Amino acid sequence: MKRSPKRVVLLGSTGSVGTQTLDVIRAFPDRFQVLGLAAGRNIDLLASQISEFRPFRYYAADGREPENCSDCRPASLMELATLKDVDLVVAAMSGADALEPAIAALRAGIPVALANKELVVMAGEHLRDAAEHGGTEILPVDSEPSAIWQCMRGEPQKPRRLIITASGGAFRGRSWDALRSVSPEEALEHPTWRMGRKITIDSATLINKALEVIEAHWLFDMPYEQIDVVMHRQSVIHSMVEFQDGSVKAQLGPPDLRYPIQCALTYPDRVENTTLPRFDPIETGNLSFEELDASLYPCFNLALDIGKRDGTWRAALVGADEAAVEMFLDGKIGFTEIGPVIEQALRDHQSITQPSLLQITEAATETARRVRSMVPALPVLPASTDA
Amino acid sequence: MKRSPKRVVLLGSTGSVGTQTLDVIRAFPDRFQVLGLAAGRNIDLLASQISEFRPFRYYAADGREPENCSDCRPASLMELATLKDVDLVVAAMSGADALEPAIAALRAGIPVALANKELVVMAGEHLRDAAEHGGTEILPVDSEPSAIWQCMRGEPQKPRRLIITASGGAFRGRSWDALRSVSPEEALEHPTWRMGRKITIDSATLINKALEVIEAHWLFDMPYEQIDVVMHRQSVIHSMVEFQDGSVKAQLGPPDLRYPIQCALTYPDRVENTTLPRFDPIETGNLSFEELDASLYPCFNLALDIGKRDGTWRAALVGADEAAVEMFLDGKIGFTEIGPVIEQALRDHQSITQPSLLQITEAATETARRVRSMVPALPVLPASTDA
Repeated sequence: MKRSPKRVVLLGSTGSVGTQTLDVIRAFPDRFQVLGLAAGRNIDLLASQISEFRPFRYYAADGREPENCSDCRPASLMELATLKDVDLVVAAMSGADALEPAIAALRAGIPVALANKELVVMAGEHLRDAAEHGGTEILPVDSEPSAIWQCMRGEPQKPRRLIITASGGAFRGRSWDALRSVSPEEALEHPTWRMGRKITIDSATLINKALEVIEAHWLFDMPYEQIDVVMHRQSVIHSMVEFQDGSVKAQLGPPDLRYPIQCALTYPDRVENTTLPRFDPIETGNLSFEELDASLYPCFNLALDIGKRDGTWRAALVGADEAAVEMFLDGKIGFTEIGPVIEQALRDHQSITQPSLLQITEAATETARRVRSMVPALPVLPASTDA
Repeated sequence: MKRSPKRVVLLGSTGSVGTQTLDVIRAFPDRFQVLGLAAGRNIDLLASQISEFRPFRYYAADGREPENCSDCRPASLMELATLKDVDLVVAAMSGADALEPAIAALRAGIPVALANKELVVMAGEHLRDAAEHGGTEILPVDSEPSAIWQCMRGEPQKPRRLIITASGGAFRGRSWDALRSVSPEEALEHPTWRMGRKITIDSATLINKALEVIEAHWLFDMPYEQIDVVMHRQSVIHSMVEFQDGSVKAQLGPPDLRYPIQCALTYPDRVENTTLPRFDPIETGNLSFEELDASLYPCFNLALDIGKRDGTWRAALVGADEAAVEMFLDGKIGFTEIGPVIEQALRDHQSITQPSLLQITEAATETARRVRSMVPALPVLPASTDA
């Protein structure tokens, strides 16, 4: 059966999720056609992607023109997301720049494969309303919401409980106090996943898991008291869903983001991809579940408490976290300061009820700015020695 | 929303699956109405079930009349299975007596919840054809095929692989040679499941798992090379399904047969049942997968090799296994003789191609008779001492 290829716009093509999305697309040359690519500052990689995938339009955040792309013309993010004939928009950019384009695509009836959980945390209502307005769907790309989405497939009723698994990040099993002087390099050593830098730090603080709980609340319309987090060191079970009758389904697989990416790209089909590692239960051996010890992860409850609030609180959280992680990676604050910095930055946040998209992105930007301005006021960090 | 109750006929109400089916029905007095009950020799239990559930018709295998059931009249199994207005037939009898009634129900368009995997092993083609003819479904009740069925729900394509989990039964980890003189009582001590006697012995020999592979082949139309078995000691993951894209779904829950029974009874709904234990990942702790060591379970490959054959081979296998297990439980043969007895009984089997239902049940009966007649010819067993 000959099918016409799915026409894809990829916002954020040069990052971790973006390059893996193109890996999947590369494995199925007949299934996908890339109509547009948007990148940040990695203009050389964008140029090589343009020459490989031959899109019609590109966006480069810094306005530079990639070399050798005479057929491919520049466009705004908004133009890319609503290009004529596009079948799927993949929102894989970090930051909030893809928020308005994603909402425009959804409102136009174009499904959006969403990798960036921060967008859902900031503007879950807007995204949900836009999908409803357009009669289309948000397809989760991150492994945990993809697992939940896959488990819910074909189930006619709302689940009783979502059980999100957490690897515990780079410092699992270590007490918070012992982490005062860890280096960015140590925090970037995730035990099971290879991901971008920001999300890897968010995994070490477990803020990432709080953001996933908030994301699941909005994506799957589930009350917070029906969303649990359980420690699962192997990152093989990506999440579980308990149904009304108590039966539980889990989605499993090697910790490889190309799985959920492909699942969203080929939806509703499932297609064999021989380039992916295969799940082998024998080789996997053991799977474990442990209680999440919140005392080891003080940022988890901090983020979750804020994330449950309405108005612009969640946007402020995302902005504060982004700036705090950036400052940690730049060596300006210590790992255990990430939480206090976020907390302090949010203390004076003036939330706006029922905010517009602009008010949401402004709340994030403004809080990030406040975080960056706090640095001189912070106590001097101890020198980087073993705790 | 007021719904009319689902009208159920239960074939095999006094056995392990039957009483658990009534446990589930008891938990939902508004959802189910019992139209008919069929039992074997446990006439007292049948009488008390009749007075509790008030069916219109009953069947007792030995023809006796239960006390105090003046409103409830006797009927044949065939009459019960095709009663007017019945919405669901639950086939929970051991042996082959429910085969023809189940097929008649399916042909009449009545879904059949099937607990007895032997029926599928013996007559998979007939059951499948009958369901197709009646435009209805076979709803699996056993935990493994129910898990597969639940995982496949809503998936539009055929899976790539079924992964059936096996607890390993009463003697897991022990070498076959050490089992020469084990007693029926030891073999009946299943580590994770409480079930009927025959299936518990089949679990100790792993013939049960071979029967489940054969059952899955017929129920889900899967080639044998796409069905794997993996040891999973905890009996929490009841089976897994790998889809075309390599993504795997598992169905989990406490080892309690009321789960898959209820899943079939309330299908397509899922309904909260507070009388069931709930899955707790923390309490579960660890899940393990190990390779199935066929040298510890010689009966597994024996049964599977025969089970892959056409004609009346599978019926002969079921008959031989039933009689061999019965003789072991009666102390007439040792545990390690179960396999050789089956093998010897099947050696002279004259398979009939494209057998009728009658030829199928006759093949089972005849092979069971041959097994029983073999006993005097068997070598005298060593006295029951520790190996």
